[in-house]
Amino acid sequence: MKETNALGDVSILGLGSMGIALARALLQRGARVTAWNRTRAKAEPLAAEGAALASSPAHAVQASAVVVVCVTDYPSTYGALEAPEAAAALAGKVLVQLSTGSPREARDAEAWARKRGADYLDGAILAIPSQIGRPESTILASGSETAFRKSKPLLEGMAGTVTYLGEKVGAASAVDLAFLSHVFSGLVGFYHGARIIEAEGLRVADLGAMFADVAPAVGAMIKQDADSIQAGTYESSEATLELCARALDLLLRQAREAGIDPTLPAFASALFRKGVDAGYGNEGPSALIKVLRQGA
Amino acid sequence: MKETNALGDVSILGLGSMGIALARALLQRGARVTAWNRTRAKAEPLAAEGAALASSPAHAVQASAVVVVCVTDYPSTYGALEAPEAAAALAGKVLVQLSTGSPREARDAEAWARKRGADYLDGAILAIPSQIGRPESTILASGSETAFRKSKPLLEGMAGTVTYLGEKVGAASAVDLAFLSHVFSGLVGFYHGARIIEAEGLRVADLGAMFADVAPAVGAMIKQDADSIQAGTYESSEATLELCARALDLLLRQAREAGIDPTLPAFASALFRKGVDAGYGNEGPSALIKVLRQGA
Repeated sequence: MKETNALGDVSILGLGSMGIALARALLQRGARVTAWNRTRAKAEPLAAEGAALASSPAHAVQASAVVVVCVTDYPSTYGALEAPEAAAALAGKVLVQLSTGSPREARDAEAWARKRGADYLDGAILAIPSQIGRPESTILASGSETAFRKSKPLLEGMAGTVTYLGEKVGAASAVDLAFLSHVFSGLVGFYHGARIIEAEGLRVADLGAMFADVAPAVGAMIKQDADSIQAGTYESSEATLELCARALDLLLRQAREAGIDPTLPAFASALFRKGVDAGYGNEGPSALIKVLRQGA
Repeated sequence: MKETNALGDVSILGLGSMGIALARALLQRGARVTAWNRTRAKAEPLAAEGAALASSPAHAVQASAVVVVCVTDYPSTYGALEAPEAAAALAGKVLVQLSTGSPREARDAEAWARKRGADYLDGAILAIPSQIGRPESTILASGSETAFRKSKPLLEGMAGTVTYLGEKVGAASAVDLAFLSHVFSGLVGFYHGARIIEAEGLRVADLGAMFADVAPAVGAMIKQDADSIQAGTYESSEATLELCARALDLLLRQAREAGIDPTLPAFASALFRKGVDAGYGNEGPSALIKVLRQGA
């Protein structure tokens, strides 16, 4: 049963696959949705599902108290909202930025919105479009607390978990990028591992199943490292940076023995060697962050 | 209650922190343990706990039906066992290699052991010394099935999970190295993420807690990628390699904006760009393995 306007009214700018998923989830939960997209054709299926279509960004901004932007990047947001009538309509509205960007872009966007009298919230979506509205999706938000309070029911209509990270507006983007950094580098490490397995004539699928089994232990290891970095204490009695560097040297040698691409182990081994050369060999691998700090 | 010789007799060569942990776990489970180490001082505490100390590798090999080697690397194994009297004593014994090495080294060691009439099993320990004998430790084994059957009770005395990967003797090392590749690269990605968080003045410990929470989801993602690689199908409707490359470009830009070391995103971004340039942009990120295959 659909209860009209249960979540309030919302305008969504940008109807890529993510924007459409967001609009659809909100329509299904009874929000009054106004949608706008640069090319109108993409908006039309949503009209059949109950969305009002705005003919311009200005009309979209005028239609709702909360304006959600989900476009390619932050410059595209300005491209859509910088026209005088759109900018004028922003006064008194809540602008929620769900496009992907950097913490600096979030700060710039917050300043830009404030100048136009809008309350600003920066968000990051930790999900693919098909997960939107489902328990496994997460939205991180940071920035103005009033903007968060006003948009919270809508955000909860889009994601299973909504986490407010506080008023530092760059926080959501920072956590999002940190997450991407971990996930993508872990994937590259897995792909190299898959090459090792292929070179031995074994089944990559078995490796994947094993990695899924041990994932919580890997997460626990990272949590421990995070606590060590937070505390600034890098002692380790067992898995030292030196031992890790040696294991990575072995990975590099194995790649050469097996005739597989040594790009990943060459990279990782050189980085850990830097840590050993800097004198952190007897500390835990988390001491590598000191190398990354020096590199700034 | 200690039941003497419940697990049979075993000789352990190499008493680094891992070798000592293995010997101790076996003594506690009632095995008759003979230990040898290049420097005898390290062996002496074990004598007080019930181990017999061998005066040479040959004496250690003579003392037990199963000989476990846990030294720095494979060359050290040959260094200990190549003396004529040690090599002669190997005939009819089971040699279990738990030192860390490459699949090729495992094959060489198997051939070496066979020449001396020994049955050979290659193993990899997925644990740190303090986990030995506990449920969270895993030993992978590959090679001769008879060698595995004879040493299985002993291996189960050392690790919570013992997995036999079949007669291809390089398998245990390959899976071990693939695992290390994933874990270390994921750690580097986390350290870079921690730098992003530090640069924003946020708490790294909060990031660690979040990563521990989402670790199972990351494991599930890797499992899906592994299945896609196994099947040779790289289609993806949502998270394309192109989108991942763009996210990594953003990470690189953010590092420059924040003045933090761009080493990791520069590396990952260049690798994913290779995938886009090779024409895999519309496939899933697992298509990156095709880039790694070309690089061989």
